Amino acid sequence: MVVAKVWKTEKPFEGTPQLSDFKLVEEKLADTLKEDEILIEAVYFTVDPYIRVLELPTGLPAEQVARIVDSKAKDFPKGSLVLAHVGWRSHAIINVKEPMNLGYKPAIVPQVAGLSPSLWLGIIGMPGVTAYMAFLERCDPKPGDVVVVSAASGAVGSVVGQLAFSKGCTVIGSAGSKEKCEWLKSLGFHHVFNYKEITPVDALKKYAPEGVDIYYDNVGGEFTEAVLNSLRPNARVLICGQIADYNRKRDEVPNPYVKILMAEAKVQGFLIFKHLDDFPRVRKELTALVQQKKLQPKETVTNGFQNMPQAFLDLFKGANFGKAIIKV
Amino acid sequence: MVVAKVWKTEKPFEGTPQLSDFKLVEEKLADTLKEDEILIEAVYFTVDPYIRVLELPTGLPAEQVARIVDSKAKDFPKGSLVLAHVGWRSHAIINVKEPMNLGYKPAIVPQVAGLSPSLWLGIIGMPGVTAYMAFLERCDPKPGDVVVVSAASGAVGSVVGQLAFSKGCTVIGSAGSKEKCEWLKSLGFHHVFNYKEITPVDALKKYAPEGVDIYYDNVGGEFTEAVLNSLRPNARVLICGQIADYNRKRDEVPNPYVKILMAEAKVQGFLIFKHLDDFPRVRKELTALVQQKKLQPKETVTNGFQNMPQAFLDLFKGANFGKAIIKV
Repeated sequence: MVVAKVWKTEKPFEGTPQLSDFKLVEEKLADTLKEDEILIEAVYFTVDPYIRVLELPTGLPAEQVARIVDSKAKDFPKGSLVLAHVGWRSHAIINVKEPMNLGYKPAIVPQVAGLSPSLWLGIIGMPGVTAYMAFLERCDPKPGDVVVVSAASGAVGSVVGQLAFSKGCTVIGSAGSKEKCEWLKSLGFHHVFNYKEITPVDALKKYAPEGVDIYYDNVGGEFTEAVLNSLRPNARVLICGQIADYNRKRDEVPNPYVKILMAEAKVQGFLIFKHLDDFPRVRKELTALVQQKKLQPKETVTNGFQNMPQAFLDLFKGANFGKAIIKV
Repeated sequence: MVVAKVWKTEKPFEGTPQLSDFKLVEEKLADTLKEDEILIEAVYFTVDPYIRVLELPTGLPAEQVARIVDSKAKDFPKGSLVLAHVGWRSHAIINVKEPMNLGYKPAIVPQVAGLSPSLWLGIIGMPGVTAYMAFLERCDPKPGDVVVVSAASGAVGSVVGQLAFSKGCTVIGSAGSKEKCEWLKSLGFHHVFNYKEITPVDALKKYAPEGVDIYYDNVGGEFTEAVLNSLRPNARVLICGQIADYNRKRDEVPNPYVKILMAEAKVQGFLIFKHLDDFPRVRKELTALVQQKKLQPKETVTNGFQNMPQAFLDLFKGANFGKAIIKV
């Protein structure tokens, strides 16, 4: 019989997690495997900040690379390594046909010469996939773009930065120690700053005086506020993590970015004056829609040039109805 | 000689504009036209909230439909109507080859039976083009989407709403009077509420209990905050106007949406757990990049299952460097 060691929490975290929040317990596993089940033993775990906000009813979430100790499942042979998402536990029995925590499915870790299996939890795992999909496939990086990455020495940020300069972007990264900053420089980051020594506002003045095209946000908080004041036209901001806010209580966080993140929402601004060339095309469409009675116009007409200021002031009182027009 | 009447302001607005901010002056125009010039006389003006935030060195901006009183410009015959963006003035001489305020170019207003020329300042003008481009071309409306439009009886909002239900969306609009709400219902809005009688939070509970897919934001402020708490996965938020904040001083407005609007930025959230099906594809790409040394991994490895809680706590202190891994 196998006894699993399992880390548990007895209640949801409050504020910053403490060592005393965790408790190590033992759990006896079933003696025999059923069809499609495997018995696994953890080799590597990953811990990620999202754990703080995604406590599951089934316990603390975490992906692991595990060795298959026994198997009754096709394509999951004994001795192979497998990615499993079954929490902070040393051993587990899982049915390979059933989804694990967060909907993950078990996947065999391939043997690739020179690559540690632990990379499948990092650069070839969730953080790497995140950087690839969120940055390359959603931020539309172009040569010459000024890209800012917060938490740049982290698991996601370091991949984002490397992908960014492979695309010809100018990359500015922040990290929290001299050692981290030096590593980022050695990777090829164009500008690196230690956020413990210089504020994001000052760093942006220095390294992005003409503004930022892409901000890859791993931290939130005042960093994000600073970058928002430095956005270039058509900037892209990718909200990936908000670690600065994870340990606050939800009702203390009037942070729109956590909401945008949680809904995977897309918030964009639109300034009509940047699109004057589209007017002839769209005016034709609109004229047809109005003629076909598919669009009904509404105007509030003020008579007299002398009343123009009042008509303008009325806009802020909600006195107008439809389009405010002044007829001379 | 033609004398133009011109509304001016002597200094930038502070807070809510007042009648006393405006001054009517007279301005003598040149006696003769040069090549490519036309003399115009205003017939209709538009006033729009953006005027509050876009005071120009050349005076108050506003588009007008004007009659061409005299012309030395090809394609701009005397007697025609023309769209001109030359401020709050009764008469002007403009060179049709030169851009006007905000980069606008003069355009002849076509004669369309049954349509007032003033519509080219509204539903077929800037507000209509805004609604069309920002909603139809940027919000990706799909049948069944729940769409919320603030300032729905306004020049932009009323067009957005009509375009939305033509796309099969369920449309919720807010307005500030019973009369406006009734008009919106008559247009076909599914749900309408008077924001002076019910808060956006309560209205959303009532009319969008399952959340919002598209929010077309004309007002900002607490309305936007309320909708952000009701976003469905993959929601789209279009920041078009922030009238609630226009009359505040800039440094009183820690409003990210004004910044997003002004940069036409795109802010989006990304939650990796919604994209598990993409993992195999992206893992293949990442493996190749790591093998080719185009991506360099970095791990901080903690030894021992018993140290897993500490490794997790270290994440919030910035103690990790690259990917945090626990080796059992």
